[in-house]
Amino acid sequence: MTGQTTYADWIAVDWGTTHLRAWAMVGGQPKAEATSADGMGTLDRDGFEPALLRLIEPWLGGTKIRVVACGMVGARQGWVEAPYVSVPAQPSQLGPVPAPCQDPRLDVLVVPGLSQSEPADVMRGEETQIAGFLAQMPDFDGVLCLPGTHAKWARISAEEVVSFQTCMTGEMFQLLADQSVLRHSVSGKDMDAEAFAEAVDDTISKPERLAQRLFSLRAQNVLHGLGAAQARGRLSGYLIGAELAATKPYWLGQDVAIAGSPALAAAYEAALKQQGVVPRVFDAGPLTRAGLARVYAALTENA
Amino acid sequence: MTGQTTYADWIAVDWGTTHLRAWAMVGGQPKAEATSADGMGTLDRDGFEPALLRLIEPWLGGTKIRVVACGMVGARQGWVEAPYVSVPAQPSQLGPVPAPCQDPRLDVLVVPGLSQSEPADVMRGEETQIAGFLAQMPDFDGVLCLPGTHAKWARISAEEVVSFQTCMTGEMFQLLADQSVLRHSVSGKDMDAEAFAEAVDDTISKPERLAQRLFSLRAQNVLHGLGAAQARGRLSGYLIGAELAATKPYWLGQDVAIAGSPALAAAYEAALKQQGVVPRVFDAGPLTRAGLARVYAALTENA
Repeated sequence: MTGQTTYADWIAVDWGTTHLRAWAMVGGQPKAEATSADGMGTLDRDGFEPALLRLIEPWLGGTKIRVVACGMVGARQGWVEAPYVSVPAQPSQLGPVPAPCQDPRLDVLVVPGLSQSEPADVMRGEETQIAGFLAQMPDFDGVLCLPGTHAKWARISAEEVVSFQTCMTGEMFQLLADQSVLRHSVSGKDMDAEAFAEAVDDTISKPERLAQRLFSLRAQNVLHGLGAAQARGRLSGYLIGAELAATKPYWLGQDVAIAGSPALAAAYEAALKQQGVVPRVFDAGPLTRAGLARVYAALTENA
Repeated sequence: MTGQTTYADWIAVDWGTTHLRAWAMVGGQPKAEATSADGMGTLDRDGFEPALLRLIEPWLGGTKIRVVACGMVGARQGWVEAPYVSVPAQPSQLGPVPAPCQDPRLDVLVVPGLSQSEPADVMRGEETQIAGFLAQMPDFDGVLCLPGTHAKWARISAEEVVSFQTCMTGEMFQLLADQSVLRHSVSGKDMDAEAFAEAVDDTISKPERLAQRLFSLRAQNVLHGLGAAQARGRLSGYLIGAELAATKPYWLGQDVAIAGSPALAAAYEAALKQQGVVPRVFDAGPLTRAGLARVYAALTENA
């Protein structure tokens, strides 16, 4: 690439704790994609610009290009702190924060996360997924669930996040399934759907029994030969059931949408259907990029 | 040590997943103690006898000596499988199982664990602590709580364990405090007692909120500067509160005793007192050895 050639209009960046992903964008469409393992958790403050350049150098021309980034790159330990914006807030209009750059070709803006004072809660990265969801569904009035390591439930109305709540369900599952005494009983990847459904019901109807049910998976395996797929399905069901018990004020009687990886979204869909809620399901895959495009477009409109 | 000299009458052994502890015993009293890190989890089946000999060789004389061992040494992956005995059962009369020995000086017996078919539950090692507790309190009729990695609650009557229940509270605490996103917010060892008490109450009164409360510790730290001792106290309180919610049928209106390490037993005592239960508190330290002595004495009486 030489002189004034412009390969892309702008660059979208999803920068989490463990991953870095960039797209060369023309308008709202990706022309190229690149990823690396240079997550925020692995970098010192002066390591961010070189890590980004290693990825996007081939897309740069002779002129300055705008880069819009979201995720943990804006945390206190990130490239630049982009302070949380308090809800209610419109996730495509959060006022991205410029990051200090040495290279004159870079104009990097970092999207802030959202905070809620009471009950205390924070998100960083998911606000951009929500912006992407709203680009598809601008009139959505209801609750959006983003399952994952730290699952988010967000009340949305008039393109604003009104309130939200986080559950550590994915992280708890990984810790218990991979590292606790239960790891001997839930090995493999298979999950029994019936065992999952029973466990969801058990926890929602008697959430006070959760602490006892977990070790029981191990005992049922040892004494009664409970299979790994059954035990894994139950463990997932107990934890997602506990999440649904905690988020009942969010989903009960609401218009609910789920945006997640297909397998996880299907599990949440099944659990909610058992409770009489029929959610709409979206693939979370393209949402971050779509949200960054929405933020970029808003910056251009507002300029 | 030479010829017919007998240094000890018998040897008591507490053999868990991560530790091995032996006492040279004269009657019910220890004359010497030795420990190593040769836990069951680190040994192949033919590694148990050498690991024991490395520890007790100095205590052996020219004659055969009885060794009574309890804990994971009797698991399927242990020295010899000592199959679970189903409750109701008297923990000092479980019929220890001989372990195969090459050395003619050794006569090793392994105490079985207890099982309960429904709700499925198992214990290995704690049955011997209970035998030690009953050596002190033979007329106890109530519920004994053994807090720890896998906390046990046992209904005891007429020197028998009638039923029991396990909660993975200690293991959950370690995983969340050391490895989850909460590790940034609960560092150090201090725990605020008031934060602990509030969290216990919160979880017992609204157990369905647990999944939401955990991440909130992180958010309160980030947004409102919640201190590490407060956050650690709350995390402990949420989890012990969840355990008390799950074990309410055990402790409500019962005569309750707690046997644990002093700090942990004090936390459970405080939590139960908030619920109107005044437990008697015992130091668990000497219970395993006392239980092994009770088993040894029963073998001698029954011989």
